[in-house]
Amino acid sequence: MLNPQLTKDGRLRHLLTLDGLPKAILTEILDIAAPFSEVAEREVKKLPLLRGKSVFNVFFENSTRTRTTFEIAAKRLSADVINLNVSTSSTSKGETLLDTVDNLCAMGADMFVMRHASSGAPYLLAQHLRATGRDHISVVNAGDGRHAHPTQGLLDMYTIRHYKQDFTKLTVAIVGDVLHSRVARSEIAALTTLGVPEVRVIAPKTLLPTDVERMGVRVFHDMKEGLKGVDVVMMLRLQNERMSGALLPSSGEYFKFYGLTEEKLALAAKDAIVLHPGPMNRGVEIDSAVADGVNAVILPQVTFGIAVRMAVMSMLAAG
Amino acid sequence: MLNPQLTKDGRLRHLLTLDGLPKAILTEILDIAAPFSEVAEREVKKLPLLRGKSVFNVFFENSTRTRTTFEIAAKRLSADVINLNVSTSSTSKGETLLDTVDNLCAMGADMFVMRHASSGAPYLLAQHLRATGRDHISVVNAGDGRHAHPTQGLLDMYTIRHYKQDFTKLTVAIVGDVLHSRVARSEIAALTTLGVPEVRVIAPKTLLPTDVERMGVRVFHDMKEGLKGVDVVMMLRLQNERMSGALLPSSGEYFKFYGLTEEKLALAAKDAIVLHPGPMNRGVEIDSAVADGVNAVILPQVTFGIAVRMAVMSMLAAG
Amino acid sequence: MLNPQLTKDGRLRHLLTLDGLPKAILTEILDIAAPFSEVAEREVKKLPLLRGKSVFNVFFENSTRTRTTFEIAAKRLSADVINLNVSTSSTSKGETLLDTVDNLCAMGADMFVMRHASSGAPYLLAQHLRATGRDHISVVNAGDGRHAHPTQGLLDMYTIRHYKQDFTKLTVAIVGDVLHSRVARSEIAALTTLGVPEVRVIAPKTLLPTDVERMGVRVFHDMKEGLKGVDVVMMLRLQNERMSGALLPSSGEYFKFYGLTEEKLALAAKDAIVLHPGPMNRGVEIDSAVADGVNAVILPQVTFGIAVRMAVMSMLAAG
Repeated sequence: MLNPQLTKDGRLRHLLTLDGLPKAILTEILDIAAPFSEVAEREVKKLPLLRGKSVFNVFFENSTRTRTTFEIAAKRLSADVINLNVSTSSTSKGETLLDTVDNLCAMGADMFVMRHASSGAPYLLAQHLRATGRDHISVVNAGDGRHAHPTQGLLDMYTIRHYKQDFTKLTVAIVGDVLHSRVARSEIAALTTLGVPEVRVIAPKTLLPTDVERMGVRVFHDMKEGLKGVDVVMMLRLQNERMSGALLPSSGEYFKFYGLTEEKLALAAKDAIVLHPGPMNRGVEIDSAVADGVNAVILPQVTFGIAVRMAVMSMLAAG
Repeated sequence: MLNPQLTKDGRLRHLLTLDGLPKAILTEILDIAAPFSEVAEREVKKLPLLRGKSVFNVFFENSTRTRTTFEIAAKRLSADVINLNVSTSSTSKGETLLDTVDNLCAMGADMFVMRHASSGAPYLLAQHLRATGRDHISVVNAGDGRHAHPTQGLLDMYTIRHYKQDFTKLTVAIVGDVLHSRVARSEIAALTTLGVPEVRVIAPKTLLPTDVERMGVRVFHDMKEGLKGVDVVMMLRLQNERMSGALLPSSGEYFKFYGLTEEKLALAAKDAIVLHPGPMNRGVEIDSAVADGVNAVILPQVTFGIAVRMAVMSMLAAG
Repeated sequence: MLNPQLTKDGRLRHLLTLDGLPKAILTEILDIAAPFSEVAEREVKKLPLLRGKSVFNVFFENSTRTRTTFEIAAKRLSADVINLNVSTSSTSKGETLLDTVDNLCAMGADMFVMRHASSGAPYLLAQHLRATGRDHISVVNAGDGRHAHPTQGLLDMYTIRHYKQDFTKLTVAIVGDVLHSRVARSEIAALTTLGVPEVRVIAPKTLLPTDVERMGVRVFHDMKEGLKGVDVVMMLRLQNERMSGALLPSSGEYFKFYGLTEEKLALAAKDAIVLHPGPMNRGVEIDSAVADGVNAVILPQVTFGIAVRMAVMSMLAAG
């Protein structure tokens, strides 16, 4: 079967997931992002690459932060950006997802950036565009259910490459609620594709998928074991709803066993870097001393995130 | 009395209603819209006609879809667009409509696009602008109560002309909740002005205004009778609140008698076109087979809607 | 201690408060605003001074009106404007104010326009930017708690200077709920700095701070006494929550004693001007006859407000 996010000649048509995205494309995105990260330093942070294009940020699930990063990226590329918070819109009038999308296409959309609570919604959209002969319109998945959050995965890869250069010599640990995390899925896929020899996940059993080993990772339940000698620590956000749920005794207990403290971090390599997708729950999954410490690269992640999104958007627009 | 939406020399000053708008102006708008509909096909969908102008989308009633079409039209004309959802704003602080408007004028507004639940609100605004010597500021009615929705009426006329060319040879049927529909009022006014010899309305008695015949239409309560031989079928949206209200037995009953199915559509002319202002209630007023069928021109309506709004805005800005 | 809103060489770095802002800077802002007030009259209301800059309107408290004036000012200066209504955003996910701000900085913010319910929040932000070596990012206080609303104070000064030229010959009365008003604090600070010889406050005791005399004002509880011979009447808005609160008997009573009527205004100088920060409660703190009368300069205040904000933003961007 053809990869729906690639064109016949192997170029990026949509960005739906990092799972199955060829290494060459992953690397190409990171390469193209590099000069964009310098745009943020300029007096005039503006390039004409998407001038006169209409980018629709269609968010069926609210996320000011992610929406803002895409909005900034698109505006710096000179696109016309239309924000649609669809949870409060037409769907409440009984319209279907595809009717909403068809309407936006008819308004002249060039690109959709879509966040949806249901896994697979951006695929459905991409499939629908193809079935209706509108393959020139691109889809960027800005997070779908528990499935994928590819631009987050890409900015994490950009960050790791920036600080560590060679993926093939790294041991990377992903810590926290893997079970509910689309971020973790995108990270594992990308790390594996880019040749990281050892990817570890560290979490209590209740926060791991049952088939987690099949993802090609080493599983640890003891954080002190799992962090030993790692070069990269990728923290996951603990959703508030989990804290009071049946899966965890309490956020205090969680912090004790899986919160990243300076003491635990000391078990990793001395020059290990610490990533977090934000927003952080200080004192729950990460201690402030670590979040603000010398190993943290959490704010550079955000900066690189703009560059990576500019890269993806410009590649899709050029295709 | 002077038509408040025309200047002394007969040019468009505001767009408030299609009722009483001269045929020459109606046709001029459609003519000017034609080249704009090609802008949507371009690589760079941008014209400088409203550069440096401030367009305020003032929506006292929420409508993401209509607001978005105006936002896109204004941005493609290079205007600065300010969206104001006034239902959640100053009016809740006890400010009057005219105080809100006066303030926006003082901020340098060039054009208001106004949606309001009260019939006549855009007239009040236009009158107020005139009374206070600010006639250079234009008003576009984006839907007021049950009264008018002129840009919807215009895009419907554009669509009909696109597919049928000559208005003077057509039989047109408007189907559904005419009583509560500002769209129907605008459509009937425009069709009549443009010389359509027979305009029919098809609806149960409870969804028709008592004086409907005075609008110059033929009334049908039986859909099979009403659709016979028509060239254009204009469906109306059935508001959710009606379905559970006293006016209708149930949405299932409604669909049985007034829902547009392939079977009923077969009674119309073979090359009849089907319009709908959206968002559609599939299975209530229209069957999916028709909505997605070869006679439907519902998505082209949306595309032409952007062009028509660009035409209106550029005419008003030029005036 | 250094004034945190000035650079070492005495130029404007942030705009946090008018209290302690040197007269030279106050006057410089008003002078720079003058040509900007002409931009609003042009066909093309657009200057390239902030082209490619990212301005974040970060509103932790909802205020459509103030947010809109900043949005317009920034867009007329060609900035990319990102609106963040943070009350509905990340803070609800447990993120701290400074984490939110750090993230926006990492996205390449050049300027923050901040509204916050807590007095001092913009100071905290400015301090944090300095402590983290990001002094090139500017902060504009768009209202913090009961503390300050400096751009409102500035536009009031611009308005007074426009109509009265010389501050040193004026008697000015501020009328209403001084206790809860950040506007009053900013006005008193600016009037004093600009050399107004007599600033009066007129209010019931329950709506005055206990140490009000220390602000260098003359206190009146009787409006007829306080208005005698004044050149400028600055009305304050009565917050709805006060009207039903314990501090006032009723809004009717309030209007009787402290509402500005033509009768009471007749006690002021014949050419006295009347200001109000809006939105007005007609019939509560001000009578419609006065609000719409010849002495009112309430709408010019709004127009000058755009010019003043453009001036502040362009000064900060140039620094």
